[in-house]
Amino acid sequence: MPITLDQAQTIVRAALQHGTEQGFQPLTVAVLDPGGALVALGRQDGSGYLRPDLATAKAWGLLGMGMNSRALAARAEASPDIYTSLVGLAGGKVVSVPGGVLVRDGEGQLLGAVGISGDASLNDEAAAVAGIEAAGLVAETGA
Amino acid sequence: MPITLDQAQTIVRAALQHGTEQGFQPLTVAVLDPGGALVALGRQDGSGYLRPDLATAKAWGLLGMGMNSRALAARAEASPDIYTSLVGLAGGKVVSVPGGVLVRDGEGQLLGAVGISGDASLNDEAAAVAGIEAAGLVAETGA
Amino acid sequence: MPITLDQAQTIVRAALQHGTEQGFQPLTVAVLDPGGALVALGRQDGSGYLRPDLATAKAWGLLGMGMNSRALAARAEASPDIYTSLVGLAGGKVVSVPGGVLVRDGEGQLLGAVGISGDASLNDEAAAVAGIEAAGLVAETGA
Amino acid sequence: MPITLDQAQTIVRAALQHGTEQGFQPLTVAVLDPGGALVALGRQDGSGYLRPDLATAKAWGLLGMGMNSRALAARAEASPDIYTSLVGLAGGKVVSVPGGVLVRDGEGQLLGAVGISGDASLNDEAAAVAGIEAAGLVAETGA
Repeated sequence: MPITLDQAQTIVRAALQHGTEQGFQPLTVAVLDPGGALVALGRQDGSGYLRPDLATAKAWGLLGMGMNSRALAARAEASPDIYTSLVGLAGGKVVSVPGGVLVRDGEGQLLGAVGISGDASLNDEAAAVAGIEAAGLVAETGA
Repeated sequence: MPITLDQAQTIVRAALQHGTEQGFQPLTVAVLDPGGALVALGRQDGSGYLRPDLATAKAWGLLGMGMNSRALAARAEASPDIYTSLVGLAGGKVVSVPGGVLVRDGEGQLLGAVGISGDASLNDEAAAVAGIEAAGLVAETGA
Repeated sequence: MPITLDQAQTIVRAALQHGTEQGFQPLTVAVLDPGGALVALGRQDGSGYLRPDLATAKAWGLLGMGMNSRALAARAEASPDIYTSLVGLAGGKVVSVPGGVLVRDGEGQLLGAVGISGDASLNDEAAAVAGIEAAGLVAETGA
Repeated sequence: MPITLDQAQTIVRAALQHGTEQGFQPLTVAVLDPGGALVALGRQDGSGYLRPDLATAKAWGLLGMGMNSRALAARAEASPDIYTSLVGLAGGKVVSVPGGVLVRDGEGQLLGAVGISGDASLNDEAAAVAGIEAAGLVAETGA
């Protein structure tokens, strides 16, 4: 069962609120279903025009590889060549730095993924986790 | 002045509510700033995975040409060759059927555009107009 | 000998001035060398963001095929299939409607091409011819 | 408020004059609005045909990320993986070396960006700064 629009909109709202409360740079939040398609996106005023693509890519690559962010980063570090190929295959829609987070329900079923871009990578990730938890769902970063 | 995230989220919410009330097929709504970048997007449960790209394209082509939907359709009808070239140049991100609507403020300044895909084109357009008006802004379809 | 930057800047300036004097919609002017690379470009305030690509394409396709605008249009009309293939091969950078004009010196040598987009095609073309003649060069439209 | 064509043409002219006076290699100057679309471009005689794309990319990536040149370079150095992904996402339209400069008005509002390519990166940047200041605007390099 994919993530619903209601859940995705809650994630966008809560993640952006987290960023604002923490004084982060303007963020862009993308929520994708398990097939890699956008369900909801929100870009705060002042967040650059590449941010929607970058936020989407952070989520898209994880879903496409079936890996959480730390597992993808470990693979990229162990084998830079495969990372370069992945980025090429995906037209750039693979990103190994933190800020992409898998979303699961209470039984561990994969519902989709969230990608955030705008501040330092670990701050992006923290906002994604805050958003996912506000929707009553489970965030998997691998950290 | 580009459209704000608050305005864009109001448009998404109200456009989708219009679709639900009218019994439309599940819709996807994209709101773009005047430079053609996404500000907000919402895809209703059951709306297909090409809909985000299609909704975005409906808005993107109008902004890129500086034309409303009916003016672009008239140009496409008068000159199929230029329409073919435009679609190629834009990587498909130009659509001449209704469902893309320019957004202006009370003084006529361009703030962005809304694209909707999911039901019949005129229904998509009606939902976009409803969303834009719910945000207190002016919808330009050219119809 | 390719067109010089001085000549190209004169063309941009004079073509835009022609458009302003005639009350045309805001125009974008692109001047390309015989190899198809930009030498100068100017986009008037309010001309949409797809116009630079479209103006460039109008000139690029003519140079790439070694044909003036009317010859390309005749080919496109006689064989829509080859036009579709051309547009695909060129990523859209071929346009058969008026607004692309070859630039020659007094001895007929090809120096480059001008493409204009923004108003009706024949107005775009008239502005290009005015610009080329202001630079003391010869415009070839095929009309 | 985006940069105007008048301001952009002043920047192109003054930046190229700076390069000529300093004995730089032939330069290409691109001026983009905040949405990443070209407003004006000038390529000096002898500047290679990839220079327009490179000059445009230097400005485009900064605007897309909402970062100045030094901030982007620091991010690229800290995380080569994200830089690789960015370049892929952007189809190459991201460049981290100097030569891309943000343009602001006196109150700090972002009007666009200038990218220059042709000589050593710091010389490219110096020409961009000279052009921006000749237009009475504020250059932000982050250096």
